[in-house]
Amino acid sequence: MTVVLAVSQAAATLIDIPSLSPTRGVILEQPEILKTWSSEEFQTFYYNQTLDHFNYRPESYTKFQQRYVMNFQYWGGPNAPILAYLGAESSIDSDLAVVGFLNDTAPRFKALQVFIEHRYYGQSIPFGSREEVMKNASTRGYFSSAQAIADYAQILLHIKKEWHAQHSPVIVIGGSYGGMLASWFRLKYPHIAIGALASSAPILYFDNITLIPPGGYYSVVTKDFKEASETCYQTIRNSWSVIDDVASQPHGLANLSRKFKTCKPLEEAAELKDYLDSMYTRAAQYNQPPRYPVTVICGGIDGAANSSSGNEDDILNKIFAGVVAYRVNQTCYVNPPRNVSETDIGWRWQTCSEMVIPIGIGNDTMFPPSPFNLSSFENECKGRYGVPPRPHWITSYYGGHDIKFILQRFGSNIIFSNGLRDPYSSGGVLENISKSIVAVKTKNGSHCLDILPASETDPQWLVEQRATEVKIIQQWLANYFADLRALIKH
Amino acid sequence: MTVVLAVSQAAATLIDIPSLSPTRGVILEQPEILKTWSSEEFQTFYYNQTLDHFNYRPESYTKFQQRYVMNFQYWGGPNAPILAYLGAESSIDSDLAVVGFLNDTAPRFKALQVFIEHRYYGQSIPFGSREEVMKNASTRGYFSSAQAIADYAQILLHIKKEWHAQHSPVIVIGGSYGGMLASWFRLKYPHIAIGALASSAPILYFDNITLIPPGGYYSVVTKDFKEASETCYQTIRNSWSVIDDVASQPHGLANLSRKFKTCKPLEEAAELKDYLDSMYTRAAQYNQPPRYPVTVICGGIDGAANSSSGNEDDILNKIFAGVVAYRVNQTCYVNPPRNVSETDIGWRWQTCSEMVIPIGIGNDTMFPPSPFNLSSFENECKGRYGVPPRPHWITSYYGGHDIKFILQRFGSNIIFSNGLRDPYSSGGVLENISKSIVAVKTKNGSHCLDILPASETDPQWLVEQRATEVKIIQQWLANYFADLRALIKH
Repeated sequence: MTVVLAVSQAAATLIDIPSLSPTRGVILEQPEILKTWSSEEFQTFYYNQTLDHFNYRPESYTKFQQRYVMNFQYWGGPNAPILAYLGAESSIDSDLAVVGFLNDTAPRFKALQVFIEHRYYGQSIPFGSREEVMKNASTRGYFSSAQAIADYAQILLHIKKEWHAQHSPVIVIGGSYGGMLASWFRLKYPHIAIGALASSAPILYFDNITLIPPGGYYSVVTKDFKEASETCYQTIRNSWSVIDDVASQPHGLANLSRKFKTCKPLEEAAELKDYLDSMYTRAAQYNQPPRYPVTVICGGIDGAANSSSGNEDDILNKIFAGVVAYRVNQTCYVNPPRNVSETDIGWRWQTCSEMVIPIGIGNDTMFPPSPFNLSSFENECKGRYGVPPRPHWITSYYGGHDIKFILQRFGSNIIFSNGLRDPYSSGGVLENISKSIVAVKTKNGSHCLDILPASETDPQWLVEQRATEVKIIQQWLANYFADLRALIKH
Repeated sequence: MTVVLAVSQAAATLIDIPSLSPTRGVILEQPEILKTWSSEEFQTFYYNQTLDHFNYRPESYTKFQQRYVMNFQYWGGPNAPILAYLGAESSIDSDLAVVGFLNDTAPRFKALQVFIEHRYYGQSIPFGSREEVMKNASTRGYFSSAQAIADYAQILLHIKKEWHAQHSPVIVIGGSYGGMLASWFRLKYPHIAIGALASSAPILYFDNITLIPPGGYYSVVTKDFKEASETCYQTIRNSWSVIDDVASQPHGLANLSRKFKTCKPLEEAAELKDYLDSMYTRAAQYNQPPRYPVTVICGGIDGAANSSSGNEDDILNKIFAGVVAYRVNQTCYVNPPRNVSETDIGWRWQTCSEMVIPIGIGNDTMFPPSPFNLSSFENECKGRYGVPPRPHWITSYYGGHDIKFILQRFGSNIIFSNGLRDPYSSGGVLENISKSIVAVKTKNGSHCLDILPASETDPQWLVEQRATEVKIIQQWLANYFADLRALIKH
């Protein structure tokens, strides 16, 4: 498990809203939610988007077709609100399937629903085929967050004009990376969005923002497992050296491959450890009701019978039982055949250009320590793409340092929602900044849970979290319409 | 006087802070102020600036040397304030000579003074020589306001780090175009500047922002002359058709050339009319104490004796007397030999790319009507540069429509200062937006008057305007330091 791999992996987990990318082979935690969406109500549009908003070179004027989807079903017409989901690091199709907050709240607000696809994902690729675009350093270079939110600005202005909704208040909504985009959009384009719901947005997980303890992400993963089961946590904690030990013995890798029913023989112990790392972090990040994957894994680990062949074998058996409990009925585990997704490709570029999230593993976790090493990360990225990351750009452009100090007297109308069991919550805004820039957090929540569709099995604390968010947005809208009446009277 | 010329001219006048560009042949209204600056106190620095902040193409990483100047004379050291002048459409040398507000107020605030040069002006030219850079559509294309304020962000962050001044509050200051940049900087980078003084910044003179009456700029010029002298106004109003009439007669242009002592023979009447247009608008824009150029011109016009050769000749004599009164002792007038300045070249590009200020001439002025025609303007720009302007970008990125409605619940700490005799005040923010986004205006003020050096001859209303601005900034700083104490205690 090299540092860089650990980082890429952890960073890559930022991208998965659960059940969001069926193509990635992730188990659908709530497959039934797909049925709640009727394609008839969602209409697809394409906007003739500008490639480069910030320069005036001849190539800057290149256009591409950017996809967005609207649902007018509940809209009250001009002046009635617009709920705009800002797409993140995947095709908008997958978000349409699982981001239920808009559809669930649109009737109450009489809102138009808009879902906008992020440039370089899904169908919104400049210059033609994604493969070619991402191979070429020049065409890839327009793939940035500032361009993406400028795209959103253009499309929202276009929609307002096109549907005579100039005075419709827009609330932007996003989760994870998309949540960051939503909060940044409110800060950069207050004339377009009157408020933002930023779900599980780790906007403080950049640069050297001091609020984050080193290894915050992995510390939360560890806490999740420890809270689920102290013995489970201990077993995992002890397992890494056992894997190394067994792997170093004659036929050790072959034995591990057999024991873990790997889809192809292991070539190094790191493959197994990375697989387990990824499984644990994913389970913690998406540790959501009703299944609670962390509990499932720990149930497997704690429930495995002790064998007669000794301590090391016991630990491996338990770990494998955890894998089986979580993955359920696979023909093989570890290194399953899997296509590299567009999210893998896109997000790797984004983390290697500007979204440098310095996730390391400290000494206080159930994982082997692995501090984040910026210079080796930079070298790796430079080797891969030819250009180095700009690790300070996000905080230069969007801020983040001393955020309460800065925003308590600037800005308004942002909800930062977090579930404290989500490892990314360690980079989230967890305290109110001002009267209208607020933190809504739940002790037991997971990554982006609040923007998933409401379900009858939702625990009370989740129902309350969503109700709180709706109430806050309702207040923003009430203030907005009061101001609008004054404007029109004037 | 073609529409486009009129527009370019009027737009071009935005660039001249009075006495700011001696190289342009403008009469120095207050030559003595140059002496108050000692070069010893101002130290020059260069920052290794990134060409393209918003993209990650290989060329984006190109670096150039950006100049900035600092004065530590009054600085109280770490935590003490920083006053940062954001350069506009000229070399920073000329600003150093005439922007006195920083030096005048630095002792009171114990402030560090910083003057930053705008990219593509002065010595801060990417890619080498200005001539070559501005000829090439690709290298010219990085010349934009968003890049410019991102440059300022990088340099200010660098200075704060370099001088251990991370918690020094930064106040950004600018005039005219630079005033727009200052207000936009506060809105886009609130984590870097805690407040902005935007002097004579016509941020509402874009797109179709409805607060601006058509022909606002020329209406104010007209009002200035009318208030100075009703007969002067009438003479000017009547003069345009007289010039056309005389020009259309046999030897008419030769007669006009002789009468106006032109530096070279007129080839069309438009040359004379453009010269006069430019003189009147400039006089109105910089109608400042103690000389008050509008009064000077009208003194010339009203004081000229009537000749015996009739009404038309009388009017021309009066107009010429106005020219002589204003220009004083030139060997010739109209089309004087003059180099095209970097400001001419740079600002023309900026107005043709994004700073599309739709200045037209309505029916209510002393000038021949000449409405702004966007499509012919676009064609002219496209012909000149190969790419069309983006006339809606400024309002898309920075806002402007319904500004009070939008910013009353967002943002803080901006002073919009205006003199109501400045024609650009018609595009300025003239009413308070909120408690801390305020308008400070003077009935008799001219363009950027408040940021010029204080002088013993300043009228009381100007002294009071500056005192008001200082008091507001003082309050921002007091709030800031109160918050900082709470932060550190915490």
